[in-house]
Amino acid sequence: MTVYNFSAGPAILPKPVLEQAQNELLNYRGSEMSVMELSHRSSLYDNIIKEAEALLREVMEIPDNYHVLFLQGGASLQFSMVPLNLAVGKKVLFVNTGAWAKKAIAAAKNVAGVEVEVIASSEDKNFSYIPEINPEMIDQDAAYLHITTNETIGGIAFKELPTTGKVPIVADMSSNILSNDYKVEDFGVIYAGAQKNIGPAGLTIVIIRDDLLNAEPVFAPMLDYRVQVENESMYNTPATYSIYIAKLVFEWLKNLGGQAEMYRLNQLKAKILYDKIEASPLFKSPVSKENRSITNIPFITGDSDLDKLFCIQAEAAGFKNIKGHRSVGGMRASIYNAFPIEGVEALVDFMTQFELENGNGAK
Amino acid sequence: MTVYNFSAGPAILPKPVLEQAQNELLNYRGSEMSVMELSHRSSLYDNIIKEAEALLREVMEIPDNYHVLFLQGGASLQFSMVPLNLAVGKKVLFVNTGAWAKKAIAAAKNVAGVEVEVIASSEDKNFSYIPEINPEMIDQDAAYLHITTNETIGGIAFKELPTTGKVPIVADMSSNILSNDYKVEDFGVIYAGAQKNIGPAGLTIVIIRDDLLNAEPVFAPMLDYRVQVENESMYNTPATYSIYIAKLVFEWLKNLGGQAEMYRLNQLKAKILYDKIEASPLFKSPVSKENRSITNIPFITGDSDLDKLFCIQAEAAGFKNIKGHRSVGGMRASIYNAFPIEGVEALVDFMTQFELENGNGAK
Repeated sequence: MTVYNFSAGPAILPKPVLEQAQNELLNYRGSEMSVMELSHRSSLYDNIIKEAEALLREVMEIPDNYHVLFLQGGASLQFSMVPLNLAVGKKVLFVNTGAWAKKAIAAAKNVAGVEVEVIASSEDKNFSYIPEINPEMIDQDAAYLHITTNETIGGIAFKELPTTGKVPIVADMSSNILSNDYKVEDFGVIYAGAQKNIGPAGLTIVIIRDDLLNAEPVFAPMLDYRVQVENESMYNTPATYSIYIAKLVFEWLKNLGGQAEMYRLNQLKAKILYDKIEASPLFKSPVSKENRSITNIPFITGDSDLDKLFCIQAEAAGFKNIKGHRSVGGMRASIYNAFPIEGVEALVDFMTQFELENGNGAK
Repeated sequence: MTVYNFSAGPAILPKPVLEQAQNELLNYRGSEMSVMELSHRSSLYDNIIKEAEALLREVMEIPDNYHVLFLQGGASLQFSMVPLNLAVGKKVLFVNTGAWAKKAIAAAKNVAGVEVEVIASSEDKNFSYIPEINPEMIDQDAAYLHITTNETIGGIAFKELPTTGKVPIVADMSSNILSNDYKVEDFGVIYAGAQKNIGPAGLTIVIIRDDLLNAEPVFAPMLDYRVQVENESMYNTPATYSIYIAKLVFEWLKNLGGQAEMYRLNQLKAKILYDKIEASPLFKSPVSKENRSITNIPFITGDSDLDKLFCIQAEAAGFKNIKGHRSVGGMRASIYNAFPIEGVEALVDFMTQFELENGNGAK
């Protein structure tokens, strides 16, 4: 049975990357050592982390005045680290677009000396759209405006970025980094957990503009961006193996044509699925058309028993992890960079089959 | 050429573990998915993390009133997390035994509301011994006494634990967890970076006694032990693949006879090398005999040019990462659980050969 893994994260990785990792697992480049066994201070490993950074800079076109950090703790630790580094004694602005934005807001509120203002929210319609942001809504004294570029659970994404004047945008880009057409120079800080488009869980990418580095030290060196920058992500031992896998993913992505080609393919994959949903007598999208994510696509029948049946039958047919997040139900197809177009086509065929068996006029 | 990897961390892993990881890399138990690709909420992954915890509890004989956490950020993040959770508004006691203890002390001093007292230090003799701790030195109102059970760089280790009355011992056990005969019930908190005796870098084990969990929430949920306990290490996505490798290592260790057998083997390996050093006309140990580490064994010739020559020739002969830490120089053999006894014997033979070529009466 062909298996398609629709997991929202940890998610599918490119097969050529896994094959190379497998080949090299016990003997990296003739060293007779696994990458997991390499000292992070060895020249062999130093090449890996430096190449990982260089490749990420290339595929994301990261300008020279931005630093790239390979950290740990996921986006959830960044929810606290960003205000701690950038906003003590200041005000920060948030757009509340769903589950992940809410977590970021809650964490910022708990950092002493940080004033939090939610300037827009789509909570009124169950986070099914991205609220509009006008330049007048941006307090020019704010340390930053925080957005979640893509809500993994709700399935909505920013297509256009807000106009914010001199206030930098800080973005949780965990679920659509490297899969969209954002430009790094439009952000002050970008952070992302690796486990969707980059590599294994436990690695966090932070891209930060030099002028935004904290002037004052943060109480904990591990939480201090400037300390991490000065130590080139090696204040302590980084997640060495995860960085190696990320490097292989960046190589794979570069060889396929880079971020622009990923974006083209992701749009294509999403269109196939959205077209199916639009034309379906049974399935529908709970999300406003203009703000639909191309990486996380929720859909429902409107009948939770039928949703359950679909999930059970889909799972049995090899469509893994298609169940919607426990907080919202229904179905969700997470189709990140490594997810093959054949998997989307197979899902669409399966949905058609399911309609024939269950869907007469149910929409 | 046979390669022996003496790296202090990330360090050698058991070959059977790497072979199993390699076999399963693209297809974990018939799922057609890599463990890296498994959702952390899937039943397949849930079994992995639960089994990892059960195995660690078994091999370390962890009592039921202790929690086991799989966190991120290394011991360096624990240096800040422990005082943040256990000691705000209180006093903490430290024993200064070297590079790692100093980092822990510095981090605790930077946590607001924590009073730090260093009750003993071996800095006077370049951290070549473990200072004596008398019960009278322990302020019974202190939140805890912090020790570094094994100094990876200096090569000294606690054989006996201090008597502390009702004050719990908090231990950075990064470099000798699972390789010694410590009893968990003698500690309040044990923490360890995984990259020496457990698995890949980027995973941190915390073992904490239930009554020591923080009463007040910590500002950042990711830094809050109680939040992590309540979420069974899944407040966010944990380092899933590293936990899987750790599980394989715990299995390997259990099958070999558990921690007691590891301790026996480690003593044996260390004795072979220390006996050689003792008898050598050229090599000597910079460390007090009673406090010598069995996992990290520094040695010198007393002539830094000769040390350099030894490191170059050893490297060329397949003895990798034998160079001492850049802060102390000389040589260092890190011989953790996964390091084979044959590697120690081969090193001893190589040292003998080097003596013959360079060592006439140089001691």
